[in-house]
Amino acid sequence: MTQTLPAKNNQKLQLSPLNIPNRLLLGPGPSNAHPDVLKAMNTAPVGHLDPAFLTLMDEIQSLLRYVWQTENQLTIAVSGTGSAAMEATIANAVEPGDVVLVGVIGYFGNRLVDMAGRYGADVRTITKPWGQVFSLDELKTAIETHRPRIVALVHAETSTGARQPLEGVGELCREHDSLLLVDSVTSMGGVPLYLDEWGVDLAYSCSQKGLGCPPGASPFTMSPRAIEKLQNRQTKVANWYLDMNLLSKYWGKERTYHHTAPINLYYALRESLRLLAEEGIENSWERHQNNAEYLWQGLEDLGMTLHVEKQYRLPTLTTVRIPEGLDGKAIAREMLLEDNLEVGGGLGELGGKVWRIGLMGYNSRKENVDKLLEVLKKKIK
Amino acid sequence: MTQTLPAKNNQKLQLSPLNIPNRLLLGPGPSNAHPDVLKAMNTAPVGHLDPAFLTLMDEIQSLLRYVWQTENQLTIAVSGTGSAAMEATIANAVEPGDVVLVGVIGYFGNRLVDMAGRYGADVRTITKPWGQVFSLDELKTAIETHRPRIVALVHAETSTGARQPLEGVGELCREHDSLLLVDSVTSMGGVPLYLDEWGVDLAYSCSQKGLGCPPGASPFTMSPRAIEKLQNRQTKVANWYLDMNLLSKYWGKERTYHHTAPINLYYALRESLRLLAEEGIENSWERHQNNAEYLWQGLEDLGMTLHVEKQYRLPTLTTVRIPEGLDGKAIAREMLLEDNLEVGGGLGELGGKVWRIGLMGYNSRKENVDKLLEVLKKKIK
Repeated sequence: MTQTLPAKNNQKLQLSPLNIPNRLLLGPGPSNAHPDVLKAMNTAPVGHLDPAFLTLMDEIQSLLRYVWQTENQLTIAVSGTGSAAMEATIANAVEPGDVVLVGVIGYFGNRLVDMAGRYGADVRTITKPWGQVFSLDELKTAIETHRPRIVALVHAETSTGARQPLEGVGELCREHDSLLLVDSVTSMGGVPLYLDEWGVDLAYSCSQKGLGCPPGASPFTMSPRAIEKLQNRQTKVANWYLDMNLLSKYWGKERTYHHTAPINLYYALRESLRLLAEEGIENSWERHQNNAEYLWQGLEDLGMTLHVEKQYRLPTLTTVRIPEGLDGKAIAREMLLEDNLEVGGGLGELGGKVWRIGLMGYNSRKENVDKLLEVLKKKIK
Repeated sequence: MTQTLPAKNNQKLQLSPLNIPNRLLLGPGPSNAHPDVLKAMNTAPVGHLDPAFLTLMDEIQSLLRYVWQTENQLTIAVSGTGSAAMEATIANAVEPGDVVLVGVIGYFGNRLVDMAGRYGADVRTITKPWGQVFSLDELKTAIETHRPRIVALVHAETSTGARQPLEGVGELCREHDSLLLVDSVTSMGGVPLYLDEWGVDLAYSCSQKGLGCPPGASPFTMSPRAIEKLQNRQTKVANWYLDMNLLSKYWGKERTYHHTAPINLYYALRESLRLLAEEGIENSWERHQNNAEYLWQGLEDLGMTLHVEKQYRLPTLTTVRIPEGLDGKAIAREMLLEDNLEVGGGLGELGGKVWRIGLMGYNSRKENVDKLLEVLKKKIK
C-alpha cells in the first residue's frame, strides 16, 4: 500500500438516504418509466461479456430494428444518452471537409450544426421559423444547390413539437449520392417511422421518451451505405467511445471488449422494448396519436392555442402557447413543486412563449391528460 | 398523423420478462453493486433540471471531491461509462499538435495513446513490461526528453494489477509546464489517492468498481491549471457530448441544459458515494488492502504465483498466474456458468497467462475471498 496521508473531510457530506419526490413527467423528457422496466433495471449487474448479457444485447438489436422498421445489421444502443447517439451518427458519418446540409427547424437542428462543425464538416444550413417544417420541394432545391455528402434532418423537433415528413427524401438523397441522417429522439416508438422504407441511412434516438425507459442507453443505426462510407474513411473516427468500427465488433459476432456497458440500463431497455413489442408498434403509434388528440382538444377547450399546424404536430410532444400576460416559467415551477407535475418551457425562439407537453411511452395515457388539464385549468384562470 | 404503412414483424421477438443469473462478480469490473445502491436506482426518474435533481448533483460533486481528495470545482460525473470519462480528459486537454507523453504499462495506456491520437496529439510513449511500473527517475528523463504539454499515466492498470506510484510526478510536471492526467478507474475509492497533494490536473474513473455502483455515470475532474488551458484553446473541443465548456455550465450555477443525464444512475452514484462517506475513505482503503492481502495469502497457499511485485500490487485487482498446463479461459467459463462466479482473463501481453481477480467496493469482503478460494481450489487440482 502507498503511504497514507490523513484524508481531508471538508467535502465529506453527511447525507440521508435518497429521497426523491414522485413526479409525473409530462415535459419533453425524461418521461416516467414503466414500473416493470424499473424493476428489471434493479437486477444485479452481470459482466459485459457474460453469455446472459450477450443474449440480451442480441434481443435489444432485434427489437430496435422492429421499432425502427429497419433491417440494418448495425443497430445498437450507445452507452450514453440521446446526445451521445446523436454525436455517434455525426462522428462516424462525417469526414473533415464533407459538405453536410442541416435542416434547422429548432434547437436540435442547431445542435447538429455545432456537432458537425466539430468533426470538420463544411456545414450548410436551411432554416424555417420554429414550429414549421420543410416541404419536399424545399429540400430538393437545397440538395441540388449544396450537393451534400450528408443531409441531416430532425424528424421530431423536441423544441417545437413539429414533425418533419420524410417521405421521398431518401430517394432524393440517393439520386444525389447523399446519406440521410435523421434525429428520431422524440419520435421512436410513438410516431410512425419506417427507416428502410424512407431510405434513412443513419438514425439515433433515446430511451426515455417513446420507449418508456430511464435515460442512458440510446438507439443508433447505420445502413449498409453509411457503413461503406465509414469503411472508406481516410482518417480514424475522431471519437474513440463512439467509433462504430470498434463498437460493431462488440455488438457483432466477434464480441471484442470495447468498454463496459451500462449493464442495468440495458436490462431496462430490453424490458421496455419487450413491452413495446408485446403491445405492437402500430398500436403504440395509435395510442400516442389518440392521447395527443385528446390533449389538443382539451387545451383548445381551455381557450389555448397550439403552436404547430395540426398535420405537422407530433403526437409525442405538444407545444401550446402561454396565454398573454402569464408568467409561463413561474407557473411551470408551481406545477412542479406544488402538483408534482413537470411540463417543459420553451427553448430558443420559443423561450417564454410556449409550454412543451410530452405524452410519451408509458406516460401516453388518458388519465395523465386529464390530470394535466385539471391542474392547468386552475393555473391559467 | 403520417400515413401508416403496415409494420413488418420479422424482427419482433416474443420475449419473457428479464431473467438474469445472479453472479458474484470478482473480475476486473463491473462489481456487484451495494443493495442499497440498486434500491436507490429504482426510484422513478425526475427531470434533469428538477430542483431535487440539482441538489443531488451538488451532493455528487462534493462527495467525488472527498473520495478523490481534491478541491477542484470542476468535479462531475460524465454521462457514460469510464471510457467516456477517459475520453473527456483527452478531448478537453488536448489540442491538435500538443505533445502528449503516455506511460504504457498495459492495455489502458495503449487506449490513451489511441484516443490522444484521434484528437490530433503528437503522442510519445514510454513502456514497461506488463505488470511493472515506472520509477520517478524514468518519468523525469522522459519528461525532460519529450517536453510534453500533457503527461498521461495509469494509476491503476486494470489489465495488469499494477499500481503506478504518483508521488513527485506532479512537481515534475509543474517544473516543465506539463499537465498531469491520471487514470484512476480501478483505484478510486479502493486505493489511497490524493489528487491535489499529488498535483494531478485531470483524472477520470468509473462507478462500477471502488464505488460499488452499477456502470454508467463516471467521475471526471479538472484542476484550475487544466481549465486555464481549456479556456485558451484556439479550437472548439472536438467532442460535443464531453465538452467541459458546456458541461460546466450545467453542473455549475448557470444550470444551462446540455443533455439529459442518466438520472437513475446518478441516484445510484449518489447513494454509493453516501455509503462510502459513511464508511470513511480511509476505512475503505484499509478494507480493500486487508481483503487483498488475505486473498494474496490464500492464493499463495494454493501454490499460485502473483504476477505483480508486492509493493506495486493493487488492492482492488490482483493478477495471478494460471498454473502451467491449465486452460485458464475454459476454467473461468466453468466458474461463471457452474459456480456463478466471474473472474477475468488476461488482456494483451497477459492473454492466457493470468486471471484477474477484483475485490472492489461492495465486493471487497472476506467471505467473497473465501468463496473464490474454495471454488478455485477445486478447479486447479
